Amino acid sequence: MENLVLKKLVIFGVGLIGGSVASALKKAGCVTEIVGVGRSNESLQTAIDLNVIDSATSNIAEAISHADIVLIAAPVAQTPLIFASIKPYLDTNTIVTDAGSTKSDVMACAKEILGDKFSQFVGGHPIAGAEKSGVTAAKADLYLNKNVVLTPNHSTSAHAVQRVRELWQLCGANVTEMSAETHDSIFAAVSHLPHLLAFALVDDIASRSNAEQLFGFAASGFRDFTRIAGSHPEMWRDISLANKTALLNEITAYQNELSRLKQMLENSDGDALHALFERASTARNNWAKLKEQ
Amino acid sequence: MENLVLKKLVIFGVGLIGGSVASALKKAGCVTEIVGVGRSNESLQTAIDLNVIDSATSNIAEAISHADIVLIAAPVAQTPLIFASIKPYLDTNTIVTDAGSTKSDVMACAKEILGDKFSQFVGGHPIAGAEKSGVTAAKADLYLNKNVVLTPNHSTSAHAVQRVRELWQLCGANVTEMSAETHDSIFAAVSHLPHLLAFALVDDIASRSNAEQLFGFAASGFRDFTRIAGSHPEMWRDISLANKTALLNEITAYQNELSRLKQMLENSDGDALHALFERASTARNNWAKLKEQ
Repeated sequence: MENLVLKKLVIFGVGLIGGSVASALKKAGCVTEIVGVGRSNESLQTAIDLNVIDSATSNIAEAISHADIVLIAAPVAQTPLIFASIKPYLDTNTIVTDAGSTKSDVMACAKEILGDKFSQFVGGHPIAGAEKSGVTAAKADLYLNKNVVLTPNHSTSAHAVQRVRELWQLCGANVTEMSAETHDSIFAAVSHLPHLLAFALVDDIASRSNAEQLFGFAASGFRDFTRIAGSHPEMWRDISLANKTALLNEITAYQNELSRLKQMLENSDGDALHALFERASTARNNWAKLKEQ
Repeated sequence: MENLVLKKLVIFGVGLIGGSVASALKKAGCVTEIVGVGRSNESLQTAIDLNVIDSATSNIAEAISHADIVLIAAPVAQTPLIFASIKPYLDTNTIVTDAGSTKSDVMACAKEILGDKFSQFVGGHPIAGAEKSGVTAAKADLYLNKNVVLTPNHSTSAHAVQRVRELWQLCGANVTEMSAETHDSIFAAVSHLPHLLAFALVDDIASRSNAEQLFGFAASGFRDFTRIAGSHPEMWRDISLANKTALLNEITAYQNELSRLKQMLENSDGDALHALFERASTARNNWAKLKEQ
């Protein structure tokens, strides 16, 4: 792991995610030069002022020339454009990775656009909270003890996977490899579905004539349950569409579960309700204990 | 408000809820004697040791004799038994109130069991978080700036309502009056439904063959969304059954909302998804800002 010394790291999108990688690698002292590329000159200048990156450019050829690793951490909707923009200038030795929340779509897109350079791409997803965004929220320990999933396939260079793994390990993360499809079905269940459920609850309440009264009596349970409903609408539209198939499966499974629960209530079946609540609370509390360790 | 001086307050169930009322009133210096009644001698002794109550007894007649207010803060399933046990000994001047999470059922039960003394009963619901339970978690400021709902009806003594209002105001709470039916429909929407949704999600995930893998990648969004799924199974069985009608209405409304969302996703209708997420996130963030004030 200590062997990973990067002469040049290029980050597309120097916000919370990309900026935190930059900060972690700088802190670890294993990168010579970090170049930022982005849509906002102001934000890139802030990243330079904060010493998160060393320089910024809008010249793609110059940016990625002789780069060891190119990290794509821009909003996911830009990923295809970024692939297309780097393709003509991509050195054989340069590894490309990303930080998007869905992986099947990114892998397919990378294969299509990068073509014969697809083996140089390693799909990645750091699982790190992002209540705040922007480079000013970036911090070197964002990934400490957090999970990062890599989704190589049979075409991916083993060397590239190893280098990207080391990059995240230097950020303090626990790295796991799995297929893009497995990744997407896992995150549909434990992340994307809960987001949609929270958005749906708040939208349902907000649309009522007595919404103000309802919100007035909402308390701490509601606050925690709906925290993720305050998330970025564009980002969640993109994630939902990108992971449509797995997410539709999850919604259907959840609708079935909810129908079962409703039936128990219609039947006033206290034993069945109690058993369901007991299973859930035991599982939830065991999970929380494990996570605290 | 400063006029409320209680010579004798009796609390059935000296746990987090009842114990915090006792602590707040003692701190405010406006109660002469607090008597605890409960099923667990050990817990009552702890309450005495912590100076939350002054004495404890299992003799109901003695306990409520000359009491100003009787607060029922035991698990709601015990409420009918407590009504029946106090009825024979209840002085005309003694006010009875409760702290249960549902109110239509309690009002109906009070009317049936207390009979000609029903006018002395004021239904109440303090909206205060209860992650921890038991008298050791009780604190004088639990109700500070929290909502308390009272649900008198046309039979309820106006004097009794005023006294119970003052009791909660001395605990620092904001008191609102509404019908039991309005209360139950509001809390079905903003509290009971979210609890059932969280229980359902965790139960659905826990029941799968790859549950361990799924939980392994669940992160902070999942943590907050499911916090209320760690709640007490018996309590939520009782609340669900007690508020069955309003809760079934809420589940149906939510199923419809979820079906609409699913349809948007099936149609890959990014604009509609974005609009829904935007409405929800705006409403959620505005609510959070208001609550912070």
